[in-house]
Amino acid sequence: MKTITSRDNAQYKDLKHLATSSQARKKAGRTLLDGVHLAQAWLDLRGLPEQCIVAEPALNNPEVADIVNKVQLAHGHILCLPEALYQAVSQVEHGVGVMFLVETPHKALPARMAVNAVVLDNVQDPGNVGSILRSAAAAGIKQVFCSAGTAFCWSPKVLRAAMGAHFVLDIFENVDLPALVAASSIPVLATSGYAQKTLYDVDLKRPVAWVFGHEGQGVSDALLSAATQTVVIPHLGKVESLNVAACAAVCFFEQVRQNQV
Amino acid sequence: MKTITSRDNAQYKDLKHLATSSQARKKAGRTLLDGVHLAQAWLDLRGLPEQCIVAEPALNNPEVADIVNKVQLAHGHILCLPEALYQAVSQVEHGVGVMFLVETPHKALPARMAVNAVVLDNVQDPGNVGSILRSAAAAGIKQVFCSAGTAFCWSPKVLRAAMGAHFVLDIFENVDLPALVAASSIPVLATSGYAQKTLYDVDLKRPVAWVFGHEGQGVSDALLSAATQTVVIPHLGKVESLNVAACAAVCFFEQVRQNQV
Repeated sequence: MKTITSRDNAQYKDLKHLATSSQARKKAGRTLLDGVHLAQAWLDLRGLPEQCIVAEPALNNPEVADIVNKVQLAHGHILCLPEALYQAVSQVEHGVGVMFLVETPHKALPARMAVNAVVLDNVQDPGNVGSILRSAAAAGIKQVFCSAGTAFCWSPKVLRAAMGAHFVLDIFENVDLPALVAASSIPVLATSGYAQKTLYDVDLKRPVAWVFGHEGQGVSDALLSAATQTVVIPHLGKVESLNVAACAAVCFFEQVRQNQV
Repeated sequence: MKTITSRDNAQYKDLKHLATSSQARKKAGRTLLDGVHLAQAWLDLRGLPEQCIVAEPALNNPEVADIVNKVQLAHGHILCLPEALYQAVSQVEHGVGVMFLVETPHKALPARMAVNAVVLDNVQDPGNVGSILRSAAAAGIKQVFCSAGTAFCWSPKVLRAAMGAHFVLDIFENVDLPALVAASSIPVLATSGYAQKTLYDVDLKRPVAWVFGHEGQGVSDALLSAATQTVVIPHLGKVESLNVAACAAVCFFEQVRQNQV
């Protein structure tokens, strides 16, 4: 276990820069997973981190000690920081004192969509993006494609909201969505309040790609017209629409339901 | 139209206190609806506010001017503030410059649950509570019962996330949930990962009450055992659970689906 006690240490300064700048994380192709839940999920699903960073007092926390032990047993790298230095890096309020530095998973963009997928067109809110990733993973969907305008998936807020869903998904960012949709070999479904067909009348016993759009403006007109079909979730009340993450959950689990009956 | 230009004006000081303290809003039985969407929804669904507060420069915004006109035509009260005084009251970043002061709707607690309802047991996150209210309203549910530990429904964050759903619902706060559930004349359903029966196997063509719990701990054991039935949303992936607002949306719209077929 390595210890750094000086704020002027070059490695510590690099880490702090990475923690406080999403630009730095994108450029370095690395991200930080803060907290016991994300660290444990990474160990279970992806293996060792590049580095496990722990606040010195947190070594007394049994959950943190368990994670540190696992990393140590597998000969992983551990960096121990005094509380003050750790807190200057952690982006989580009242965090428990453990985080993983990991390489942001990166896969080559598939030539076309062929398995169940989610397409996010300028979804802005990190909490919404995280919730959509979490629901997608729970519904057994594997691929997520995001436009350049969608919230950065590997930001602390999206990671926290998705609770580890990132690690079972293949996430592709900055994707040219109109080209992707045009080349799709599976039906591309977009929800729209103006659609004729309800979600419940669409055959979902086959792979489909779901398109969701901006919280205010919805799916862009270009994508709506490129989609194979628009579907509506029937509303019974006077309220005009659902939150985009709620809408996504309803669609994903209608597909789960149809595949179970 | 009344204008206040001094920060020392007693009415302005009251307004600012109300805007910045949720304790003050609870005590006064009043709340502020910030922005065009909430103000318009209130006008459509509930009528005049106690007061329409507008930033002087916002009178040039057509949507704001339209709202101010409607209030004026109906002989409602309008308070115009210089930009700096308005911004000190508004809790919305980059807000458009209009808000309504309204009496927080308040109805007597029904003797027992008899129509479709939602029961929120210590749901903490204002965004989750707002999204659940929005989904409930869209699914035609009328009543929402909240424990004392659930986020205050009339806070700015919950109001913003619910997009006007509050105005079509009857919301009861600080409710003794175990007593409510014990006295229910309709089935009370709670979601649980350990339930035997799936959501899709439960008869929802009758009124039910849905119970949702704390983001980390779920529904309390006392309520789980008081519930008529626990149900599970089948998961296909390795991810353990859904966000509580996503879970609620899936349940509400499975009920909508069953009532349509």
